[in-house]
Amino acid sequence: MIKKVRLQELAELVQGEVMGDGDIVISNVAGLDTAKKGDISFLAKSAKKALLDKTDASAVIVPLDIDEAPQPAIKVKNPYLASAIIHNYLLEEEFVAKGVHEQAYVGSDCTMGEKITIEACAVIGNSVTLGERVRIRAGVVIGDNVTIGDDCDIHPNVVIEEGSILGNRIILHAGTVIGSDGYGYAPDEKGCHIKRPQVGIVQIDDDVEIGANCCVDRAAFGVTWIKAGTKIDNLVQVAHNVVLGENCLLVGQSAVAGSTTLGRNVVLGGKAAVVGHITVNDGVMIAGQSGVNKNFPAGSVVGGTPAIPMKQYAKSAAVFGKIPDLRNDVRRLKKELEEIKKQLANDNRSTGENDV
Amino acid sequence: MIKKVRLQELAELVQGEVMGDGDIVISNVAGLDTAKKGDISFLAKSAKKALLDKTDASAVIVPLDIDEAPQPAIKVKNPYLASAIIHNYLLEEEFVAKGVHEQAYVGSDCTMGEKITIEACAVIGNSVTLGERVRIRAGVVIGDNVTIGDDCDIHPNVVIEEGSILGNRIILHAGTVIGSDGYGYAPDEKGCHIKRPQVGIVQIDDDVEIGANCCVDRAAFGVTWIKAGTKIDNLVQVAHNVVLGENCLLVGQSAVAGSTTLGRNVVLGGKAAVVGHITVNDGVMIAGQSGVNKNFPAGSVVGGTPAIPMKQYAKSAAVFGKIPDLRNDVRRLKKELEEIKKQLANDNRSTGENDV
Amino acid sequence: MIKKVRLQELAELVQGEVMGDGDIVISNVAGLDTAKKGDISFLAKSAKKALLDKTDASAVIVPLDIDEAPQPAIKVKNPYLASAIIHNYLLEEEFVAKGVHEQAYVGSDCTMGEKITIEACAVIGNSVTLGERVRIRAGVVIGDNVTIGDDCDIHPNVVIEEGSILGNRIILHAGTVIGSDGYGYAPDEKGCHIKRPQVGIVQIDDDVEIGANCCVDRAAFGVTWIKAGTKIDNLVQVAHNVVLGENCLLVGQSAVAGSTTLGRNVVLGGKAAVVGHITVNDGVMIAGQSGVNKNFPAGSVVGGTPAIPMKQYAKSAAVFGKIPDLRNDVRRLKKELEEIKKQLANDNRSTGENDV
Repeated sequence: MIKKVRLQELAELVQGEVMGDGDIVISNVAGLDTAKKGDISFLAKSAKKALLDKTDASAVIVPLDIDEAPQPAIKVKNPYLASAIIHNYLLEEEFVAKGVHEQAYVGSDCTMGEKITIEACAVIGNSVTLGERVRIRAGVVIGDNVTIGDDCDIHPNVVIEEGSILGNRIILHAGTVIGSDGYGYAPDEKGCHIKRPQVGIVQIDDDVEIGANCCVDRAAFGVTWIKAGTKIDNLVQVAHNVVLGENCLLVGQSAVAGSTTLGRNVVLGGKAAVVGHITVNDGVMIAGQSGVNKNFPAGSVVGGTPAIPMKQYAKSAAVFGKIPDLRNDVRRLKKELEEIKKQLANDNRSTGENDV
Repeated sequence: MIKKVRLQELAELVQGEVMGDGDIVISNVAGLDTAKKGDISFLAKSAKKALLDKTDASAVIVPLDIDEAPQPAIKVKNPYLASAIIHNYLLEEEFVAKGVHEQAYVGSDCTMGEKITIEACAVIGNSVTLGERVRIRAGVVIGDNVTIGDDCDIHPNVVIEEGSILGNRIILHAGTVIGSDGYGYAPDEKGCHIKRPQVGIVQIDDDVEIGANCCVDRAAFGVTWIKAGTKIDNLVQVAHNVVLGENCLLVGQSAVAGSTTLGRNVVLGGKAAVVGHITVNDGVMIAGQSGVNKNFPAGSVVGGTPAIPMKQYAKSAAVFGKIPDLRNDVRRLKKELEEIKKQLANDNRSTGENDV
Repeated sequence: MIKKVRLQELAELVQGEVMGDGDIVISNVAGLDTAKKGDISFLAKSAKKALLDKTDASAVIVPLDIDEAPQPAIKVKNPYLASAIIHNYLLEEEFVAKGVHEQAYVGSDCTMGEKITIEACAVIGNSVTLGERVRIRAGVVIGDNVTIGDDCDIHPNVVIEEGSILGNRIILHAGTVIGSDGYGYAPDEKGCHIKRPQVGIVQIDDDVEIGANCCVDRAAFGVTWIKAGTKIDNLVQVAHNVVLGENCLLVGQSAVAGSTTLGRNVVLGGKAAVVGHITVNDGVMIAGQSGVNKNFPAGSVVGGTPAIPMKQYAKSAAVFGKIPDLRNDVRRLKKELEEIKKQLANDNRSTGENDV
């Protein structure tokens, strides 16, 4: 279960260069402060080089500008990334297929890979398709006509409502709901809200990971679509007909309202929100707690509600606490100006008198 | 399963007037852009009339100021509403009662309608009452002494804690929790928080729909009450002893704090919050991300934290990004005023000298 | 099931002094307005003393400055606290151990107290330890190697992922997820996000209560730690490697970002957020909807985003709606100043001419 890998092999995995003994054997990744013999750790920035003298790690991953280390090392451009790749590699295990638990329930006409695990009290509807190496954990409920690709891990008590289509290597954390009805009503003349049927689906592409207790609503018509590589934190709301581009990041408790499209690599900070029916360009970064109600140029960093460019927002936010002082200043200025005006009027009058 | 209905019949359903062939047969509703033969679509506003030439829909629902259309049409006052009513009608299916699944569990002394469905791994407590045509989906947990009326649809993994009372035609989406303990503690002298027992219940009236992963807490004493026709989006928090009036809308991630009462048709935008122990008048609309800490006249539109009238808020929010400029202006004015004051003092002195 | 306790005994429980007949028998706590014969109620503040004349309660708990009451009473320093203690005492019931339900599933090598209840459709992994008087309600999923102490109540559909360690007297409300993966990725050169393995755990100490549909993520390395006595409301996010000190209060929809440490008795208002990688001192109180991005002195009350001292925030927030007026004032001042400057220039010129 625990891999033992030569340092040289790990270096090749991340296109790094070994300094020192490439034959030492590594079986785990840990932080510099907690690493033990047999562990590899990493130094993100050379400025903290002194930490290398204090760690018990058997090896370290270091940035390119480190030329020597007290222990064997792998030099790479991005130690943070390399440590993630190495850690995943060391933890990789062969999929253990346990089949369908006798306390699970599977409907009719389902198609499943040869190697799957469906745990106790999971409930699978009719005409469901599961790929290879899929793990459906305890308490998961999957509706009719759902399709799930290969190598997916669906954590306990997730609900995937009918018709949803999931790609490969998708991780859904516990309690998340995929394909709940979108929030759509038409008010009648008495102020009652008539439900608009939500007959679309949710599509989630490869390598998407969604945190715990999130909600992704099915489309009213058509598809709510999360594209490949997007990663979503906990308690996030994705409304009906939203499209999230590739590799977006949606941090905890953020939300995208209905029919909005995010480009690639858009980042929503914690609790940030985007209104409905807009497009957000590629690479736009939205600060935590902000509210975006219009588009910005690709790559913009924005903040505030309604969001404005981040630098401008930060300056305004810094002055916010001084608004009362500002108001007092303005009041004082007004008063002083009034006095000056009076004085000038007097002067003029006296000058006028002089003129006479 | 798919209904086939004459256009004339659909027109009567919505008190509309047929233009063209009322005998064509419709079986589905779709958007103008995706509609196919046999579908009816709708045009919300006559300004977009040109779209009627491009749709493949067999019929359209149009507003009263449209006098001709390239396809058979139904003229109504509110096409958006009419399309919802027609869509619901076309999708309407007879309830299919599947009884109690053998992998479900039902406690003792329960009373159930003749036509019900309780799916696999649902768990029903003791002394529970279910009306007719109730669907309890997989993984739902219902506590003791819960009462549910007719025609309710409880989605997977919903939890309804003991004593809750639900009316008719209620939809609860997946993962929602009804009747969890309210958040109430009394601090002791050491700063420890002593739990206040939460012995009240939750009551939900007819035609309420609640989204996924919401929380509605039971009352400390008495009842947390959601009145008829209110519609709640995903991830919304309704605290103990809250009363939500008829036909309120609570958009995603909004929250109402303890013991607050909303009137009828109050709207909370996404992430909006109302503090505890206040009343909000009928028809008040609260902008997304706002925080309301006092009441406003019925029908007010408010925004910001703390919320103020929306027009005022919008003006202030628009100026927010210019506060630093404002401060710089004030600084400059101060300086200029100082100079003027000096100059005036000099002038006075020189004038004074002249006087001598 | 219903206790009947003499007033004198209840007074001793809260170190209170009986006024009137200490032998009357009490079996319930209720509000002054709803209390009936046999109930005890409480008056939080003597200012509302007149309410004592209107209640049907058989006895009341009153503050020390009340010298007489129309009914038997207990005088204490803190009636609110005393009523909570008395209510808990009256509701206290002996734990009813029902064992493992036949529709539950328990893995191998588990260690359990003699008196436990595991309800239908609960799923317990391998090598799980449960203490005495633990109730695992329906639909709960507990991963491998989880440890739970004595007297815990785990509500329906909670998920506790593998390796989590829970102390004694812990209440987790329905739908909450403990030990989901933290949100950690390393971006590669193409903008893809490589998952950083989350190999730490969650530790929850004694007397913690967590509301419904919350998320507490496991640590990347090490432990996400909620210390004793902390109480968390619904829909709250606790990210990886967070440490919450003793007796903190996290109100609904609040969030603490990764690697942040809160001291003791810190309070987060509803929807408040604390950024990652900071420390918050003991007793800091954070207003609802605020965003804290730095530390403040112990006991500070702060508000706004980014948070500033509450008094300052409140003043600024009060002026916020007047920023447009302020800007108009400044514009007017500018104009007036320009006119004065012109006038002064003219005066000088005219004075200069006079000088010639």
